[in-house]
Amino acid sequence: MDQQEIKIYGHIATIRKKGKIVFIVLRTFDNEEQVTVKKNEVSEELWNLVNELGREYFIEVEGTLVKSKIAKLGREILPKSIKIISKSFPPPIDLYGKTEAEWPTRLRFRYLDIRKPKVKAIFRIRSTLMNAAREFLRKEGFVELSFPIIIATATEGGAELFPVIYFGREAFLAQSSQLYKQSAVAAFGKVFSIAPSFRAEKSRTRKHLTEFWQIDVEAALVTKKDLMDLQFRLVRHVVEKILEENEKDLKILNLEKLEPWDHYEVISYDEAIEILKKKGFKIEWGEDFGADEERALVKEFDVPFFIPEFPSSITAFYYMVDERNPKIAHRIDMMGPGDYGVEWSSGGLREHNPDRLKKRMIELGLRPESFEWYLDMFNYGFPPHGGFGMGVERLLQTLLKLERIHEASLYPRTPDILKP
Amino acid sequence: MDQQEIKIYGHIATIRKKGKIVFIVLRTFDNEEQVTVKKNEVSEELWNLVNELGREYFIEVEGTLVKSKIAKLGREILPKSIKIISKSFPPPIDLYGKTEAEWPTRLRFRYLDIRKPKVKAIFRIRSTLMNAAREFLRKEGFVELSFPIIIATATEGGAELFPVIYFGREAFLAQSSQLYKQSAVAAFGKVFSIAPSFRAEKSRTRKHLTEFWQIDVEAALVTKKDLMDLQFRLVRHVVEKILEENEKDLKILNLEKLEPWDHYEVISYDEAIEILKKKGFKIEWGEDFGADEERALVKEFDVPFFIPEFPSSITAFYYMVDERNPKIAHRIDMMGPGDYGVEWSSGGLREHNPDRLKKRMIELGLRPESFEWYLDMFNYGFPPHGGFGMGVERLLQTLLKLERIHEASLYPRTPDILKP
Repeated sequence: MDQQEIKIYGHIATIRKKGKIVFIVLRTFDNEEQVTVKKNEVSEELWNLVNELGREYFIEVEGTLVKSKIAKLGREILPKSIKIISKSFPPPIDLYGKTEAEWPTRLRFRYLDIRKPKVKAIFRIRSTLMNAAREFLRKEGFVELSFPIIIATATEGGAELFPVIYFGREAFLAQSSQLYKQSAVAAFGKVFSIAPSFRAEKSRTRKHLTEFWQIDVEAALVTKKDLMDLQFRLVRHVVEKILEENEKDLKILNLEKLEPWDHYEVISYDEAIEILKKKGFKIEWGEDFGADEERALVKEFDVPFFIPEFPSSITAFYYMVDERNPKIAHRIDMMGPGDYGVEWSSGGLREHNPDRLKKRMIELGLRPESFEWYLDMFNYGFPPHGGFGMGVERLLQTLLKLERIHEASLYPRTPDILKP
Repeated sequence: MDQQEIKIYGHIATIRKKGKIVFIVLRTFDNEEQVTVKKNEVSEELWNLVNELGREYFIEVEGTLVKSKIAKLGREILPKSIKIISKSFPPPIDLYGKTEAEWPTRLRFRYLDIRKPKVKAIFRIRSTLMNAAREFLRKEGFVELSFPIIIATATEGGAELFPVIYFGREAFLAQSSQLYKQSAVAAFGKVFSIAPSFRAEKSRTRKHLTEFWQIDVEAALVTKKDLMDLQFRLVRHVVEKILEENEKDLKILNLEKLEPWDHYEVISYDEAIEILKKKGFKIEWGEDFGADEERALVKEFDVPFFIPEFPSSITAFYYMVDERNPKIAHRIDMMGPGDYGVEWSSGGLREHNPDRLKKRMIELGLRPESFEWYLDMFNYGFPPHGGFGMGVERLLQTLLKLERIHEASLYPRTPDILKP
């Protein structure tokens, strides 16, 4: 094929006049095309119309697609007709300039910002990630379920919850589907959901969103090794699928070097504390890692790693406490490695004995009365089980080397940002 | 294979003693198996243990799987050992009785109710539905995105919204991703999300949930026919996939006769009004269909049908009003047919001219100031577009002939029910 008649639609990305030639870079929904309008070769009407066009005009172009040695894509369109479908004001942010607008300005005009090829590439990859995660879990025999978002009881204690007014009653937005996915595991054995979760944390860090999507997984009769293997294979499948389906997007993002890790590592909580102490952090056994500690820790690794136990005092009530050493709970954190590394998931083995659960709740300052149905369900032949919740945007942040997690969310929500 | 050594786990569904034989129906996560314990063939220890077992005990069974002419599944397990993993209180609802518990009681103990094979079948089919819908849309070139749940502005006007307290500010739970999916269509051309939506309707009907999942789709440059075809093909793909993947579940639900419809029908709004008037309903041109009218209407059809325009006075502001006949708006409702029929989706062509949009908002009593960013985005070369929002539970209700839509939700939310 040397030439081909086509009709395409798109936004004018850039328009440049060079004497008797006008070069239009047309951003279609999938690509960019060059439209070359030569005064001598088109009607006067078309030439006049071309001179009226501006950036972000949405136009229809009919013409001939021909090979080109000069055009970036190796091809150009010589138009026979151009129609303006929708005019545009001059865009308030430069979608194609060399210096990008500041992040707050980009967010203010996010509905224009998301038209940028780099931003679109992030979300096409996110689409693959979501699909690949589901595909992997379904192949592993997991049933996809949807758990409630509006809940009556705080899962992780009362803090960091968004209150909802539910027909005059107090309710909350779910921080995770924790209690519900546990209930479902007794029926289905292997369950998952990928759904929005909410944390009313005032943290204004590069890794916090108040609204994010979580891959929530729970399985009966699993070991800690099973959970680590499952998560590692899930992430590897996601990376493989991105490589398969998003070659063009990775190129746009200069991430051609992305490759799936071939193994994971495991370090104990004690080892993590040691590493941090050596790096000068004042952290003691029994403390959780703050943002700085986590950042320092992940930089030490170039493959994903797990910390497969934590002090029980800093671990949520639903984790199983080690029988022989009650200071330790079977919580497993999965960490993404490197400069863009971050905690990807938390999970572990769950306690399924209602008496021990009640005791743990009281120890951690929670009121067992608030968890009535949850505690009750463990009285009915509950299988041992475990699971994890993996943050979609967290994973994307590491894979795509995003400065801020907010870039992995189409319309991010932070303590300060509620619109658009 | 005539016999096979196996180890399986499951809950005791029923346990029945007949002289020197005990028959256990074991509900595994995927199936039901019969375990036959013969006093003369097992150790005294095992026989004694078997006599301690009760319903919903979670046990491990090791033994030999053999063919059986008597057992329901054509096979039975002769155990060599049985281990109790978790004991159970006697279940407060009969999971296997002939008379099912009343719906409110089932909901109160939903964490046990979902262990029933019939309930599990519904949710395994729901899992297929969600996956099939995504698979179809991805193949059609749609990008999966996630839109915000916490929003600052009411999409459909101020009514029927759940307020959220967002760091001291007023916010709401999204009724749909309407405004956001429209914003994304200008960038990606074809977008979808399957996500929770919220309506604070006090309706206590068989077809209302306050929290439900919606297949939200939006595409640039579509006609009304495109939108109808797309939805019909989506539903057909879903049914085909259910037939392919859920044969066993359909059998459990006595739905072996499910088959994909081979065509859809279209009736005008005027025709719908005529049908209802003939059936004795007092409905006039300009009114929307209530629950009773809708139920009467869908019973007249045995294939899905569309109503491809509505009076503009009862149509949300974002629909395009017909230029030649402004009394009519290009809203398209898709209706599921038959006794379990219900409105599956609402959609249509959208207005993309900011001035006309503003005018419509004022006509419908909305304040354009609340939609500032939304109105602004149409100033930047906005492509003509349309889409729809299809209710996951609505579709499931018709396909699986569910009396109440609540049965299509694992933990349904209604004005009265907030837990479990």
